[in-house]
Amino acid sequence: MQMLASDHPTPQHAKLAIDAVLRVRERRPRIHCITNAVAQNFTANLLLAAGAIPSMTVAPDEIADFVGSADALLVNLGTFDRERREAVEIAVKQVVNAGRPWVLDPVFVDRSRPRAQFARTLMARSPTAIRLNAAEFAAVADVQAGEKTPERLALDRCCVVALSGAIDIVTDGARTAKIENGDPLMARVTAMGCAGTALVTAALAVETDRWVATLGALLAFAVAGEWAAARARGPGTLAIEILDALANLDRETLLTRARLS
Amino acid sequence: MQMLASDHPTPQHAKLAIDAVLRVRERRPRIHCITNAVAQNFTANLLLAAGAIPSMTVAPDEIADFVGSADALLVNLGTFDRERREAVEIAVKQVVNAGRPWVLDPVFVDRSRPRAQFARTLMARSPTAIRLNAAEFAAVADVQAGEKTPERLALDRCCVVALSGAIDIVTDGARTAKIENGDPLMARVTAMGCAGTALVTAALAVETDRWVATLGALLAFAVAGEWAAARARGPGTLAIEILDALANLDRETLLTRARLS
Amino acid sequence: MQMLASDHPTPQHAKLAIDAVLRVRERRPRIHCITNAVAQNFTANLLLAAGAIPSMTVAPDEIADFVGSADALLVNLGTFDRERREAVEIAVKQVVNAGRPWVLDPVFVDRSRPRAQFARTLMARSPTAIRLNAAEFAAVADVQAGEKTPERLALDRCCVVALSGAIDIVTDGARTAKIENGDPLMARVTAMGCAGTALVTAALAVETDRWVATLGALLAFAVAGEWAAARARGPGTLAIEILDALANLDRETLLTRARLS
Repeated sequence: MQMLASDHPTPQHAKLAIDAVLRVRERRPRIHCITNAVAQNFTANLLLAAGAIPSMTVAPDEIADFVGSADALLVNLGTFDRERREAVEIAVKQVVNAGRPWVLDPVFVDRSRPRAQFARTLMARSPTAIRLNAAEFAAVADVQAGEKTPERLALDRCCVVALSGAIDIVTDGARTAKIENGDPLMARVTAMGCAGTALVTAALAVETDRWVATLGALLAFAVAGEWAAARARGPGTLAIEILDALANLDRETLLTRARLS
Repeated sequence: MQMLASDHPTPQHAKLAIDAVLRVRERRPRIHCITNAVAQNFTANLLLAAGAIPSMTVAPDEIADFVGSADALLVNLGTFDRERREAVEIAVKQVVNAGRPWVLDPVFVDRSRPRAQFARTLMARSPTAIRLNAAEFAAVADVQAGEKTPERLALDRCCVVALSGAIDIVTDGARTAKIENGDPLMARVTAMGCAGTALVTAALAVETDRWVATLGALLAFAVAGEWAAARARGPGTLAIEILDALANLDRETLLTRARLS
Repeated sequence: MQMLASDHPTPQHAKLAIDAVLRVRERRPRIHCITNAVAQNFTANLLLAAGAIPSMTVAPDEIADFVGSADALLVNLGTFDRERREAVEIAVKQVVNAGRPWVLDPVFVDRSRPRAQFARTLMARSPTAIRLNAAEFAAVADVQAGEKTPERLALDRCCVVALSGAIDIVTDGARTAKIENGDPLMARVTAMGCAGTALVTAALAVETDRWVATLGALLAFAVAGEWAAARARGPGTLAIEILDALANLDRETLLTRARLS
């Protein structure tokens, strides 16, 4: 199999990406989140801090009403109950028909076979972006069909793939960026990754270049985490400081601190 | 339709209202909350900070046991799953039969028709107070029957209506107060409004004048929010500071800072 | 009935206990928590702060996969819905068969008869430890069979009993310790007790002497709470500070501050 070459981000890309995530503050998009019970509160707070308007219902009876008036949809598989799966079916169908963005976060698919199976069926339904770590990637990518790299997965599924880790990789197959910002303490706060994916969803609601939107959200999130970690005395204060940082960080600071390659 | 004139609050009303909410610290009422998954944790923490003892189960099998030993009930429609609806039916029936106060918070009824319909059936079952914003008011009031103002809704439903906004309005039809305290940053924290309604429920458990109780809770909440906003650096720190404020604010400070009209 | 004499903790016990809980930082055990909706987020954050890796799914379809790859299981009855009960049945059976530790926290069984009944059936299935307060003890102990003290309950059920209160008691029937650390403000934060029991579960995953493990977790938790209370301005800041404390407190500080008898 031939390896794919992909373009690296330019300073211009960083500006566009940061502009995209800051546009969330102005446009205040409505983001509907079907996310796990552990992450609901922190995710809603992070979206509000960034300027978006979250809604979080998972009830099949009313999911259509909420998704119908939302600008983008997040599907996070962190709690895999029947009600949420039913809601996901309705919501994804609706958002795909309406041509609006939706993002898949297949949390912990490496720990549960039925969840991995469900994630694979969702990946066949054209998510705008997928965010996952290396273990989750291994659990859902079709390696036998050649999906060995995030670039290949992105091309196969026509979506943006964000591979999270010490360094985040964001690729649409043609363009790949590495984000070197962030802080290890972020991994000591529950739902931190889930909330980051919600921010990606918000950026996709206000930026049509999906790679730029995903990059902007994860870059701002990582810079905010770094900023917060510098002020925090542990994981408790970090979770609070990152909300304040996302509400307050300005364009200049984000640009100055961004470390992309 | 004739407009209703209603009395304005006097300094004596402010004192009675603040005494009511501070009585929560002494009496420690048990408040059962059927509230949405996003708000459960923050609501429980806010009730504990104010001195009340929260319980939060939504299981139909045991809701009767919990409500039977609670002093008041909160019904918040923010997540509209089947289990919660079933629990609401049992709980409201029980609390109404026992003659204890219950409060309805019809969150986001403007975003979901089935939820608005459910809210209307609950409004027919004599809530002690209803708290909602302008969009939610428009979704559940029967405008054709003349329910165009919070005063009229309060008279029709024999309850207190708290209309939240930049300025909160609290009315029982005969008496109307406007609360000018609060801070815009409060809207950037999820479940802030839901938790405020829980505080109303706690005040109703210890004060028989339902208008005084509702006013006291929302006034203390708004002053605490203002106090917290003055110390906060963003929405993350605000959510923490308001809990500390509710635990610590004294009668003198509340009276001095109250801005009622 | 003859009263049981039990040994008191020695300074050597304190060292072993503190070593056990600090081992969580090195070994990073996976702890699966079936816990109530109010406590999920804070419990996950407390486990992460202490060094453990939490998972929280309650879906019967995948609970076996999660428990199968976890080092210990927490069962907290704080929300008593059907899905959680179904998940508990599967999870307890699996963990008992595998010979791994599991801990029961029968929250609020004094408020709900069906919950107390469920707790009693679980107590017959050999939990490694049970943590409960005096009211919960009275609701589940078989007083007629002589279970009048935590020591007797521990001997009857072959488990460690941790009786929480102003002073925590930890006993396996033969050895009993009293922990005099802690702060009353801890009771003003929701899920604080639930999170403490999760820390017990994590310590049991890395220490085979179940009494030493339970003692270590509750001692570290109480010292962290005390440390946090000294820095907090109310319950809001306390909840944040205790997470930072658990992530940072060193062996020397824990040993110096421990007040055992």
